[in-house]
Formats: sequence, structure tokens, C-alpha cells
Amino acid sequence: MKAVRFVGEHAPPTMQDVEKPTVRDPHDVIVRIAGAGVCRTDIHILDGAAPLQPAPPPPFTLGHENAGWIDAVGSAVSTVSVGDPVILHPAITCGICMACRNGEDMYCTSTRFPGVDGTDGGYAEFLRTSVRAVAPMAKGVLPATQAPLADAGITAFHAVRRILPELRAGSIVAVLGVGGLGHIGVQLVRTMSPARVFALDLTPERIELATRLGAERGFSTDDPDFPAEFLKASDGKGADVVLDFVGEQNSPDVALRILRPGGTYSIVGYGGRLSVPTVAMITREIRILGNFVGNYRDLVELMELQRQGRVAVSAKEYPLREAPRAVEDLRRGRILGRAVLIP
Amino acid sequence: MKAVRFVGEHAPPTMQDVEKPTVRDPHDVIVRIAGAGVCRTDIHILDGAAPLQPAPPPPFTLGHENAGWIDAVGSAVSTVSVGDPVILHPAITCGICMACRNGEDMYCTSTRFPGVDGTDGGYAEFLRTSVRAVAPMAKGVLPATQAPLADAGITAFHAVRRILPELRAGSIVAVLGVGGLGHIGVQLVRTMSPARVFALDLTPERIELATRLGAERGFSTDDPDFPAEFLKASDGKGADVVLDFVGEQNSPDVALRILRPGGTYSIVGYGGRLSVPTVAMITREIRILGNFVGNYRDLVELMELQRQGRVAVSAKEYPLREAPRAVEDLRRGRILGRAVLIP
Amino acid sequence: MKAVRFVGEHAPPTMQDVEKPTVRDPHDVIVRIAGAGVCRTDIHILDGAAPLQPAPPPPFTLGHENAGWIDAVGSAVSTVSVGDPVILHPAITCGICMACRNGEDMYCTSTRFPGVDGTDGGYAEFLRTSVRAVAPMAKGVLPATQAPLADAGITAFHAVRRILPELRAGSIVAVLGVGGLGHIGVQLVRTMSPARVFALDLTPERIELATRLGAERGFSTDDPDFPAEFLKASDGKGADVVLDFVGEQNSPDVALRILRPGGTYSIVGYGGRLSVPTVAMITREIRILGNFVGNYRDLVELMELQRQGRVAVSAKEYPLREAPRAVEDLRRGRILGRAVLIP
Amino acid sequence: MKAVRFVGEHAPPTMQDVEKPTVRDPHDVIVRIAGAGVCRTDIHILDGAAPLQPAPPPPFTLGHENAGWIDAVGSAVSTVSVGDPVILHPAITCGICMACRNGEDMYCTSTRFPGVDGTDGGYAEFLRTSVRAVAPMAKGVLPATQAPLADAGITAFHAVRRILPELRAGSIVAVLGVGGLGHIGVQLVRTMSPARVFALDLTPERIELATRLGAERGFSTDDPDFPAEFLKASDGKGADVVLDFVGEQNSPDVALRILRPGGTYSIVGYGGRLSVPTVAMITREIRILGNFVGNYRDLVELMELQRQGRVAVSAKEYPLREAPRAVEDLRRGRILGRAVLIP
Repeated sequence: MKAVRFVGEHAPPTMQDVEKPTVRDPHDVIVRIAGAGVCRTDIHILDGAAPLQPAPPPPFTLGHENAGWIDAVGSAVSTVSVGDPVILHPAITCGICMACRNGEDMYCTSTRFPGVDGTDGGYAEFLRTSVRAVAPMAKGVLPATQAPLADAGITAFHAVRRILPELRAGSIVAVLGVGGLGHIGVQLVRTMSPARVFALDLTPERIELATRLGAERGFSTDDPDFPAEFLKASDGKGADVVLDFVGEQNSPDVALRILRPGGTYSIVGYGGRLSVPTVAMITREIRILGNFVGNYRDLVELMELQRQGRVAVSAKEYPLREAPRAVEDLRRGRILGRAVLIP
Repeated sequence: MKAVRFVGEHAPPTMQDVEKPTVRDPHDVIVRIAGAGVCRTDIHILDGAAPLQPAPPPPFTLGHENAGWIDAVGSAVSTVSVGDPVILHPAITCGICMACRNGEDMYCTSTRFPGVDGTDGGYAEFLRTSVRAVAPMAKGVLPATQAPLADAGITAFHAVRRILPELRAGSIVAVLGVGGLGHIGVQLVRTMSPARVFALDLTPERIELATRLGAERGFSTDDPDFPAEFLKASDGKGADVVLDFVGEQNSPDVALRILRPGGTYSIVGYGGRLSVPTVAMITREIRILGNFVGNYRDLVELMELQRQGRVAVSAKEYPLREAPRAVEDLRRGRILGRAVLIP
Repeated sequence: MKAVRFVGEHAPPTMQDVEKPTVRDPHDVIVRIAGAGVCRTDIHILDGAAPLQPAPPPPFTLGHENAGWIDAVGSAVSTVSVGDPVILHPAITCGICMACRNGEDMYCTSTRFPGVDGTDGGYAEFLRTSVRAVAPMAKGVLPATQAPLADAGITAFHAVRRILPELRAGSIVAVLGVGGLGHIGVQLVRTMSPARVFALDLTPERIELATRLGAERGFSTDDPDFPAEFLKASDGKGADVVLDFVGEQNSPDVALRILRPGGTYSIVGYGGRLSVPTVAMITREIRILGNFVGNYRDLVELMELQRQGRVAVSAKEYPLREAPRAVEDLRRGRILGRAVLIP
Repeated sequence: MKAVRFVGEHAPPTMQDVEKPTVRDPHDVIVRIAGAGVCRTDIHILDGAAPLQPAPPPPFTLGHENAGWIDAVGSAVSTVSVGDPVILHPAITCGICMACRNGEDMYCTSTRFPGVDGTDGGYAEFLRTSVRAVAPMAKGVLPATQAPLADAGITAFHAVRRILPELRAGSIVAVLGVGGLGHIGVQLVRTMSPARVFALDLTPERIELATRLGAERGFSTDDPDFPAEFLKASDGKGADVVLDFVGEQNSPDVALRILRPGGTYSIVGYGGRLSVPTVAMITREIRILGNFVGNYRDLVELMELQRQGRVAVSAKEYPLREAPRAVEDLRRGRILGRAVLIP
């Protein structure tokens, strides 16, 4: 079958012929891929800055944000059948360690992460995963268009879900970066909490997208007066929470500048550095949270919101063979929402 | 009356004759000081590195950790009487802003902070504060010995109370720095939660103090093998929470090295810098909390634990006129527990 | 001035001439009433079934759900001015007891409750309360129409806010009784949480109102098949939470019949009796919550949602002199939303 | 092998010869029983008042509180080996439903409950369960003596763990009933929280046991003045939480009489009826919680506290053949702590 693979640092993603995966374990599931989202993490891997260290050696198939149909199942699988539309939790988990028992799938002690840790991912016609990773989709939904919920969506959901206890009526959440994750984050804060959303980005198109999706106001982080205006718009208080979907360049500095004392800075994007004197942590009682993908339960709940029409993905489709162009478009900020590869 | 004052950066704390404070407002309370604790924040102020910026100009009376007896009360005060032994919350608050209504005293929009923000503090025979700041002490307690609970104690309590929801049976809390705050922190984790305490310090005397107060193990941060040994002692997992009572030199790095993925780094001490790549925040899902003193309610609850004998202060007394020597002893790490000035 | 008063059990509410209240204390505030909501609690008082026991003796002015304009202020009042539109928290609180410091206004140790505990309420031209009880309204809002937020609204908000930690995407909240409180409760669950709302009432008009306000489905509790249909509509699971705004007749039985194991039964209305074998409490792990009005902070947050247009009151106005008719209409279930008396 | 079985309502527990269980499924585990606790639920079953309805028909082997050594394992079991000392979670769970993924073992959609639902329990030489139900014990512990932790312990732990967020320094927890569960509950509140414990029972021996285990005070519920004395001992406030390990006769009434407004009544024992007017639920803002056994994680954490010496079981051993005498002793209140059957 065709697969687009990481073949070495600084090489473009490359289409190759590989063997179709088959059921090897009673809990295995083979998924025929309908769509696979393109993520900034793919760029980090291609650039030799993989999030998991030591970086897994090439070659392997990229793609950790996948949806499709069940193609084959192992002997112990009874909860899904061939032909079912499914979305895939990014990780393959054991189900017996204490993390799995607590629902903390990303902490499974024997986890695998297709498309990221060297296990073959979903930039391909088929993918092997486990029955524990597949979540059924509502009838009538086209899996391809929903693929971004598998990683961009689950990660945004996880980050938003974790700040819900902070959010009261009148709270202000600053969403920093309205890209693949951020445009979902705006909707989730709006539909899951009584908070207000202020959106921050560089480009007018994205700020406009955010306001269309429920943000009360938008700010251009290019504008040198923006922190002062933000402060004014929040009655001098600042943001109760900053959700940083960028995490690189100066985004930590921007976030801390607009955060109120006692507020929460929640980091989702990465690539940069957080640097702050401890005295500022103390006197302003700052709280900082890192976020790493999300739990299976997060994915199930997100799909329920999608089913109810309370969250929608803005996606742009590319044929699988045009993966290099999709990656390049993402790198250059040309995508509004998320790019999805269609085999 | 006599008072020991901040008279300029890099000058020693200086005893001067000043006017005795009097009741000016219906809610005012004059307290005859029994004891005033000496805190690292005093050193920061004397060194020109005051936590509140812009730094308040000299001269003013130091001392933000005070206990004593009611000496005079304003016309609207009915909850305490002359002669009552009391401990003082560090801040003077308004009682009508939303922060006060939420019990978040340190966020009061018109707060004053005697001994820190230029308002006269408790290195003196008498101090003026508000009825909202005084908490009654149990009968038979000598106020002087309990003064460290007013700041070292409340701050440790606040930090420990905020991590309680994280602590399950088997959780490991690393207490970094067993000084004035840390030696109270060890006791509080032990008596308020089912967690285990591992204590970290440079000197054997302090590590021994920690184990006497309930720490299961102690580690010398001087020992280059200490992170490896810590990891081993926690079955390869690392600390669930690091309570950093140091916050300077390399303590943030030490803390992050021994913290488990998904763990919480809670900062209480200050003077250094926290610096971490966002990718580490993400893939390890780190949570970082700053802590700034505590609420009035924290102080009341702490005094209740003291009354029950579940927490005790290790204090060393100095006559008020020997404040410079007490400050110097603290600076040189010669104090086990907390120094208290007695007028 | 004119006031409508409780003059004895089973007597109708009676208009009398009484003295206009005046400022007596520095923190007093006199409010010119714009509107006063009519509540089932008024009926309970008139019927000799007052919620607070021992029942306060007649006569006193009814009305605990009030909005208006500042008419006069005491010498210590600086946060509001004559002419400001305000909504009134139902209780007059001291501001110095521990409950007040924790924001739990209804637990104030020296609380007064105008219109309920014998203190004169708002079925009148003017009312005396404290500066701590008044919350400013957004400019341009007509106070009369918002009066129901002061009790019906705050109580619904308080109950909904307390169940928020239980609500995940896909959770089902059954709102039992779509009257003065319930029609606000439906909106609050919908805008503050990711949950789904199923509305239950006797009359089609109210069920229709609920669906217009965001309920996904409505059920007639008259229909003998309704529990079976409810179960089916929730995929066999039952309600995660039942918010019972009725609390009398058989509503506790209805609530427990449709509640899922591990679910929460939250009681707001009263008049009936909860009776359940302890074995059912155990094997179904039921959680039951009583709710009593709400905090000042709840009211402020609710007014913020009103300002944003995320919650609206359905109110029907009556002249003050027609209070008996309004009470009778409420008693007979003829009011959609809430009745408000206009002086 | 020998087993003691339920053979019919009102018949005594009867020893019979039955077949030794064998591995049938890859995840099965056969445990050689070291000790099986005797629980009031056994009495309820024998009396025809089984907690799970419809009641499972006789005959089946009783015993849902078991510890022992691994005797045989299925092909998919890798986390325990033959000879390992283990304690058994009471339920056999699937590990794939959403409840299992959330760690809520008692809500597993295909759960079995040996000794209670008709599945053979541990009043026998051997028991079949699943690998998901076994928790390793610390080396050197004699399994028999710890058996009561498997049900009495886990249930007390679960109930205490759920009230921890309510408990602050100075909170008062009333432990109602110092029997098999209650004597563990006293220790757990004391070691896991900053709260104070007041113990309530009929007999002086049990009250004395409670004070030896950490209760600050004891009250005889026989004493007609006890509610007044309780109120006085709590400075007029009442209990913040009542943990009711009785749940029958008048215990709900006793509990509600000593509970403070805003307090929590947590029910663990059963057999009686909770009956309260909704107006009392409202005006006193009561919170009531049912508790049903506990999660696997609760058991693991409890065993960690046992390992640290922070909780200990008071147990009395009986030979398996004397089960009828043990049951009779429990029925007559002759056991201090818990009875354990030894094969």
C-alpha cells in the first residue's frame, strides 16, 4: 500500500510502497484510513526536533491524527465491527497498568504512539492499532472531515477541560493562536463554560474565524499596543486563563504579560522556552500547566459535542500524495483550520 | 517606642525611637508585640531586592510575622478585647472588595502589608493593624513562640493546602529546603494528607530535623548522586509534588529533575529563575504553582492544628536590639527553624 | 408608603400604609423598588408553612426578590450612589464572621432575610438593606424586569454552579419543573456546561418554553410511560443529575426513579418529603444536595451572564396592589416564568 | 474442597463439599484463601435481605472479603505469579467498558460480585477471580489478618476519600458505629486529613477502641443527652461530616440531628430508611452521599497505608467450619473489629 514516511531529518515527507498491516494480536484492529490530519508535530519531526527523545530513527510512516473505517479485527474484539466508522485515539495502551485504570491513557507504562514514536502512523491507506484506541463515530459523519478531532481536537479538549474548574461567569480566556487547535479551543471554551473568549493571533483571517466561532474580541499580537488594549478590554484585570496554542517564539512572554495575578497559563504548543523569575511566580501567584494530548474519554466526549453540533472542524483536504505541499502550507501559515490528507 | 527599621539598601536593620501607633479608624487594633519572626524577605528588602516593586523607600519598620496582645481597639471592634493574645495575618484588608468576599485576602484591592510595603511592621514594641487581621490564639499559648506561624506558617499552610487535592496514599512530596517554612511544611503534609515526605537540604542537621518531624527519608542536595537515589527511593517514579521553599540558585532545576511526569512543582521561595523548554512542559505535563503568603482562613486553620499539637514551630529567640545579628545568622544558614525578635 | 404585608396565616397579602424606611447605620442603603418577584416561598409563608422556623409573627412586608434604584446611603457607603440601578442579594450580612469571609453569605451568623424572617421586604415602595447586599446592574437594563434574578435566578445559579464539576460532555441534566426557577435553570445548564438538558413538567406550554430555552427534549410527568421513555432517550442510563425545582408532591420519587446509579439529585423546591431506603442509597451510590438561595458572588456572576445575553427572564408584571391576584395566579400555575410586582 | 454456603433464607451458613475452581479464561486467577472476613452483608443475605435485587438463589459460597496466595493463573496473566500473597478486590470487572476506563470498578457494565451475586465467594479453600481483581501485598504480611481490608477496609477508604475535599483543619467528622468498618474509618480520617474525629457507638469497649485509634472524643448514642453534648463539644456547630457505618434503626435520624447546616451525611451501612422533609434539605443545605464498596485504586492505596503502618485491622480469627458461630457473634455485637474465617 502507499504510505508517506519520515525518511530523514530535513528530507521532505516521502511516499513509499509498504506492506499493508495485518492483525497480529487478539486486540488488534486494522483501520482503513479516511483522513489523516497534518500537525505541527510532523514539522518538528521532519526538522529533527521530535517531541519524544531520543528521536525515533527513520524511516516510519507519519500521521498521528486519524479516522477511517474498521477493516479487520482480532479475535478478542467485540465492540466494533468491520465497516464501522471510527476515530482513533493517538496512543495504543495496555489497559492493565494503573495509568490505564485511571483513564490516563497518555501515561500508560507500555504506550505506543503511531506516527510519532517510530510506530507506523496514518499517512497511509491502512493503520494497525488496538481496540482500546478506536472510538465509534456518529452515523452519517464522514470520517475524513473529523480526523483533526483525533489530535488537534482531543488536545484542545483536554486543555480546556482541565481549566473548567477555574472558569466562572465573567472569566476571560485568552486563546493565543487560532490555528488547527486554537479554532477548536475557542468553540470548546464557549460551549463548555460560562467564560468569555478573547482571541489573539497575527493574521486578520484567523482573528475573524475566532470571532465567528464565539470569541467576543480579537487582538493582533503584532500590534505593539495590544497588551495595553487587552488590559483595558478586561477592565484592567487581565486574562484569567491564557491558552497558548503556539508555545514558541515569544508566546510565553506574551502570555505572562496579559495574565492576571492568580491566573493560569496553560501551554499546548511547543518549541520555545518559558523563562520567569521565581519572584514573579510568587507575588503574582501564577499557575502554569503543560498539556500532552488527551485521554480516550476526552475523545469520546469531544465526539459527543461534535454529534450535537457544538463543535466543528475547519479542514482543508489534500490528496495523500500531496503531503509535502500540505506540510509546506502549514509551515507557511497558509491553512485556516487544519489540513487533512485523503488516501 | 523602640523599632528596628529599614533605613536604606545594604544598611543593617537599625533601631530607632519612633512614635507609638494609636487608633485612627473604628476598625483599628493596636497590638503589643510579643514576637516578630525574621524572614528571608527581610534580607531581600535590606539587599534592595524587595518582592513588591517599585520598592518602598526607607525608612520603615520591618517585621511582617507578628504575634502579641491586644493593646487598644477602635470603636467598631467587638470580636477581640484588650489583653487577648493574638496572631496577625500579614495583610490589612478592606473586607468589601470581591477578593475579600472570596476569602482571598492577599488579593484585596486596597491591601496594605506592614513591614513589606512601607507600612510600619512588627520589629517594634507596638503595631497598628485592623480587626480583620487578628486571629485569636488558644489560651495558655505564649504568643512569641508562635509568631513564625504568622508568615512562615501561613505560607507553608497555604502551599500545602493547595496541593492536597493531588495527594493520595503513596504520593511522594519532596520538601526542598527545611528552614523556617520547610520545617513547618514537612509537618503539615504529614498531618493533613496521606502522602509520604522526602526532605531535601544541604545540611545534615536540617535533614535530621525533617525526619524527626515526619519525613520518611532525607537527601543531601550536595550529593551529586542525589537525583538518581531519589528516583530509586521512589521506585523509579519521581516526586508527585515538589514543594520548593528555596526558589533561588538552582532549586528550580533540581525540582524539575526529580518531578514525575504529570507532577506538580509548587514554588514558595524566590530569588532565582525558572527556565524550561515548552516541549518539556508538554511531554511531561508539568504543573507549576506560585504561592504568595496565605488567607486569613489559612491562618485560623493553622492555629487550630497548633492547638491540637499537630504542628509545632522550632524557634530561636533574639532580643529586638539584636535584630542585625538575627538577620546575619539567617543569612549564613545558622538558624534551625526560625529566628524570633522579642521586644 | 404603600406595602403589601403578611398579616396572618391564610389571610391574603394585604396592602397597608407603613413608614418609609430611613438610613440608621453607616452601611445602610435605602432602595426605591422597581420590581419585586412573587415566589412560592411567599405562598408557603401565607399558608403557615414558612421555611424558617419558628415562623416569624405577622405583620411584615413580604418580598425577597427585589431590584430598584439607590435612594439613600449611609455614611460609610462608597461603592454605590443615589440613582444607581441595583439588584439585591436576599440576605443582609455582617461581613466579619467566617462565613462572610468565605463568601458563604447565607451562613452569616447574624444574617437577616427581608420578606422572609420578619424583616420588611420589597413588596413596597422602598426597602432598607446593607451596602453588602446590593449588586450594580449593567447600564440600560430596566431593574423591574430583572428582579426575578435576585432569588429565582440566584437560587437556580447556585444549584447549577454546584453541579458543574459533575457535568461532562454527554451528561444529561433533568430539570424537573420549568417555572420561575426552572426556566432559568435550563438556560444556565446550557450556557455554563457541556451537558444536555431534558425538561420535565406537567404542562405543554412549560415544556415548550424549556425547549425554546435550550432543552434537547421535554417529558410530561403526567404521562405514565414517562420514566421508561426517559430511560430510552438516555440510552438506558438515566439522568446524571436531576435538578428538582418542585420538591413537593411526589417529585423526590420521580427524581430518584430517573436518576442513574452514581448520579446526583439536587433539591431546590420544597414542601414534600424525601424518603428512601439506605440500601438504595448504597447500592446505587446516590448523592443528594440541598440548595438554599445563593451567595452574593453567584448573583454578580448571574448578572454578568444576563449582561452578555446568555440568560433571560420570562416575567409577567402586576401592579403592587394586585399582589393577591399574582399570588393566586402562581398558586394555580397560570404564570409562565415569574410574576413581578411593580409599585 | 470445603466451602461454607448460603443454602436458603433463614438457614445457617452451611459447610459443603464442592469442586475446586480451575482456570477457565486467560485472565483467570485461582487464589488459595488465607482469610475471609465476615460482614453484615452476609447476615443480610442469610436473612433474605440481600443488597442486590433480585436476590440470587441459593446455593452459593459466601465471602466477599478475601486474601490469600496465587494458586494458578491463566495464560494472559503476567503481573502476578503462583505463591504471591494477594488481597482481592471484591468485584470481577471487564476492563474495557467506560466505567473500567474511569477506574470506577463497581460500575463495570459486566461486573460479577463473588459471595454476593451468586458467584462463589471466599468462605472456601479456593476462589476463582480475575487478574484485574488481585492487588499484591507487601512482603512479610500475613494475608489472613489483612482480609478485612478487602471489603470493610476498601469501603471505609472509599467513603473517607470522597469526603476529603470537605475536610479542613478543625473540621469534625462524626464516625457513627465503630465496628468492622468504623474502626478503620476512624484511623483513615485521622491519617488522611487534618480533621478531628468524634466517635459514636452504643458500647464503651468500641468507644474506647475508637479513642485508642485517634478519635478525640467518644459519645454513647444510648445517652439521651448525647446530641446536646455533641453540639456543646463542637462549640455549638455540629458535625461537618457524619460517616454512618450503621445505616439502620434510627441512625439516619441521629446523623441528621448532629449534622451542621451545610454539612455532609455519608451513608455506608444499610438496612434502615432515610426520611427527611425537603424543606430541611433546603434550609440546612444538607448533602447526602451513598457509598458502595470502592475502586481497585482505593484498595491499592489502602494497602500502601497498611504497609506504612498508618492503618491496622483489629481482627478475630475463627476456623472456617465455625462460620455459623462467627456470624452469630457478629449479629450479637460480640466482635471488636472484624471476624475472619481461616480455612
